[in-house]
Amino acid sequence: MKPKRVEDSYTEQVQVLGLANMNGNDRLFGGTLMSWIDIVAAVVARRHSNRNVTTASVSELTFKAPAFANDTLLLCGHITYAGRTSMEICVESYVEELNGARKLINTAYLTMVALDENGTPCTVPPLLIETEKQRLEYEAAIERRNKRNK
Amino acid sequence: MKPKRVEDSYTEQVQVLGLANMNGNDRLFGGTLMSWIDIVAAVVARRHSNRNVTTASVSELTFKAPAFANDTLLLCGHITYAGRTSMEICVESYVEELNGARKLINTAYLTMVALDENGTPCTVPPLLIETEKQRLEYEAAIERRNKRNK
Amino acid sequence: MKPKRVEDSYTEQVQVLGLANMNGNDRLFGGTLMSWIDIVAAVVARRHSNRNVTTASVSELTFKAPAFANDTLLLCGHITYAGRTSMEICVESYVEELNGARKLINTAYLTMVALDENGTPCTVPPLLIETEKQRLEYEAAIERRNKRNK
Amino acid sequence: MKPKRVEDSYTEQVQVLGLANMNGNDRLFGGTLMSWIDIVAAVVARRHSNRNVTTASVSELTFKAPAFANDTLLLCGHITYAGRTSMEICVESYVEELNGARKLINTAYLTMVALDENGTPCTVPPLLIETEKQRLEYEAAIERRNKRNK
Amino acid sequence: MKPKRVEDSYTEQVQVLGLANMNGNDRLFGGTLMSWIDIVAAVVARRHSNRNVTTASVSELTFKAPAFANDTLLLCGHITYAGRTSMEICVESYVEELNGARKLINTAYLTMVALDENGTPCTVPPLLIETEKQRLEYEAAIERRNKRNK
Amino acid sequence: MKPKRVEDSYTEQVQVLGLANMNGNDRLFGGTLMSWIDIVAAVVARRHSNRNVTTASVSELTFKAPAFANDTLLLCGHITYAGRTSMEICVESYVEELNGARKLINTAYLTMVALDENGTPCTVPPLLIETEKQRLEYEAAIERRNKRNK
Repeated sequence: MKPKRVEDSYTEQVQVLGLANMNGNDRLFGGTLMSWIDIVAAVVARRHSNRNVTTASVSELTFKAPAFANDTLLLCGHITYAGRTSMEICVESYVEELNGARKLINTAYLTMVALDENGTPCTVPPLLIETEKQRLEYEAAIERRNKRNK
Repeated sequence: MKPKRVEDSYTEQVQVLGLANMNGNDRLFGGTLMSWIDIVAAVVARRHSNRNVTTASVSELTFKAPAFANDTLLLCGHITYAGRTSMEICVESYVEELNGARKLINTAYLTMVALDENGTPCTVPPLLIETEKQRLEYEAAIERRNKRNK
Repeated sequence: MKPKRVEDSYTEQVQVLGLANMNGNDRLFGGTLMSWIDIVAAVVARRHSNRNVTTASVSELTFKAPAFANDTLLLCGHITYAGRTSMEICVESYVEELNGARKLINTAYLTMVALDENGTPCTVPPLLIETEKQRLEYEAAIERRNKRNK
Repeated sequence: MKPKRVEDSYTEQVQVLGLANMNGNDRLFGGTLMSWIDIVAAVVARRHSNRNVTTASVSELTFKAPAFANDTLLLCGHITYAGRTSMEICVESYVEELNGARKLINTAYLTMVALDENGTPCTVPPLLIETEKQRLEYEAAIERRNKRNK
Repeated sequence: MKPKRVEDSYTEQVQVLGLANMNGNDRLFGGTLMSWIDIVAAVVARRHSNRNVTTASVSELTFKAPAFANDTLLLCGHITYAGRTSMEICVESYVEELNGARKLINTAYLTMVALDENGTPCTVPPLLIETEKQRLEYEAAIERRNKRNK
Repeated sequence: MKPKRVEDSYTEQVQVLGLANMNGNDRLFGGTLMSWIDIVAAVVARRHSNRNVTTASVSELTFKAPAFANDTLLLCGHITYAGRTSMEICVESYVEELNGARKLINTAYLTMVALDENGTPCTVPPLLIETEKQRLEYEAAIERRNKRNK
């Protein structure tokens, strides 16, 4: 299979936070953010694998700052690692201020598995590492994978 | 105010369609798609105006093809026109096949108004027209505006 | 097919606005209102055509005033035009005060298409025009239709 | 206070059932129907009392038949009894076939209380009984009320 | 069939109230609470009957106190009566304070029917009455059943 | 502060899966399950700390098997570790068959932080370790914590 680059499957999603997204402390409900993160990760994994995918696990999802009603939310997803049938996707969530400044509020790493027409895991294209930052992320993904499989 | 380009406020949103998004004919419910379009248009208008915005009207929202459960949906929003306090935003919605091919399923034009801290309409940056396609869209937006105000 | 009158398919819907319906500015989220409008229009079109229907387009949906939490919302839908297989439906949305006064907050025109058992467009009954107001709306609908098809 | 008639507060709501409304047996989820019934009852009570209202209790809510995806649902609410500060509202839910035939799927009786600006129960207009059917419903409501207070 | 005890099917559900659950008076929307009650009752009935179940009716659902954003909600469901194919389930809903104190906000009695693989009502295990409190609830359930069937 | 036992804050939640919870592959949408897990973890943490809490991170959330429409879902949450202001909560999600058999479909570990009235992290009671299983979980939680802080 022909290797693919990180940018080939880069994915963005935006939201404007309404009251339906707020928890009882008037902050973005974490469960809602996790739902959006799962969607973004799925699209990145579909774009890399050209396959239907399923979420296998979430690791190191960290809430760094709250978000509030009327905030613009920006979720950016990119692939960090491609194994034989699984991929690790990183989704970074930002509050985007009206002046355009972005504040990171959540970082999440999800492992997605590609599925063939029968729902069986199937091989995915290798990931072409082109930058030092990508190489570091790739190695960190392997480390997370090793911890999980320990 | 310094003019801004169309690409300065270009906005993307992705969805993976679950059953909660389906109408009773097993197709994407139009009302749900309109909600997503409204969010994308609001983010485009916020990015162009650096202001809070409100939806003033929707014109020429056209459903061209259905979408089904498990489809990847891609919504792309860009500004077509900037007046004194209002902007016209075009949102094109695509089903993105697993092989990456995109099929246009909906085109919508929305008029958004920028609001200052008191909720009063306020001026927005002019739009810098750089291509022939942008010029044609700009003129079509003015024509729609004139029809509405007739 | 036997012609039908406007009042034969007149449809009402009420809502009481909860926080789940509010955007981040504490006003009714436009996308939610559009979802309700789409439902009302579909029922009007079903009642006129006695058929399953699909939304073809939305034109001239205009937000005239905001609605707030705890407001009673009243949506009234009526048919303005019947073509061969398509119908234009007007949905007017009101905030209904506790004293019964109604304030128009949104007017929308939607084109719905009747579908037979195979999902193919099928003919609908002619519309019987009985009043001057209905005649004017019918002509305005034809004008909107001509603009769209231009 | 001037008495009001049953028809003065009569209220209708329509729905077209999407998959989001279905339980795991592919039938309308009872909890969703109860939410819609509660909204309709609240609007009837607001229209009779011209006051903000709260739901005090539900009695004799009976599911008579299922509803399925793509069904048109019609909810009709009317007042059956007015006490000093409380009202009993009956909401009848129908599946409306494409040919216009209506099948009763649920009958519900709810007791609503009118609230003044401080959220305290306040008096409501007497109910003008004009027909034999209304008189029977009024007496049945009093019987339900007596049972509850026993 | 072997009789089962009340505690064999006892069921708990918790919620933390977000803004999406609030009505326009900033209190828990009754329709949402009724949806959760319906789910809890269904699980109690499934656990008693080991069958798929459907909600037949709701009787004496009483709102005793409001709940507010950020409240912890606790719903406790237990069976009060088992007939041939139907069961009565009581669901009590509490606000649980941070210090652990519980305040009853709603009591509901639902009648659920067990269904076999064809969706036909089927017999359920008898209920083993072990305490005086259970005996009183069982008799009250029979009384409610007699009233309904009158 | 007086130490508390694991069972003092044990929490259960049940769901019956409707179509609204299904992704486009007719399986429980992972984002919805994550929302429910977040709620259960929050209630465990509130019950241990007697405080308002916030989710700090999710680690090792693993999907082990799918769930389908009409399944009964059971989520069980218990505390595994209490630090100075943070707690680790484990939520295990099961499909509960009609015969009562339970199949583990997801395991998740979340770190929750207790907040005082000003929203500042505040101390939580120590956790009383009473069994070998609890001791192993406590040590695994510390190991996860050390990895995260590395």
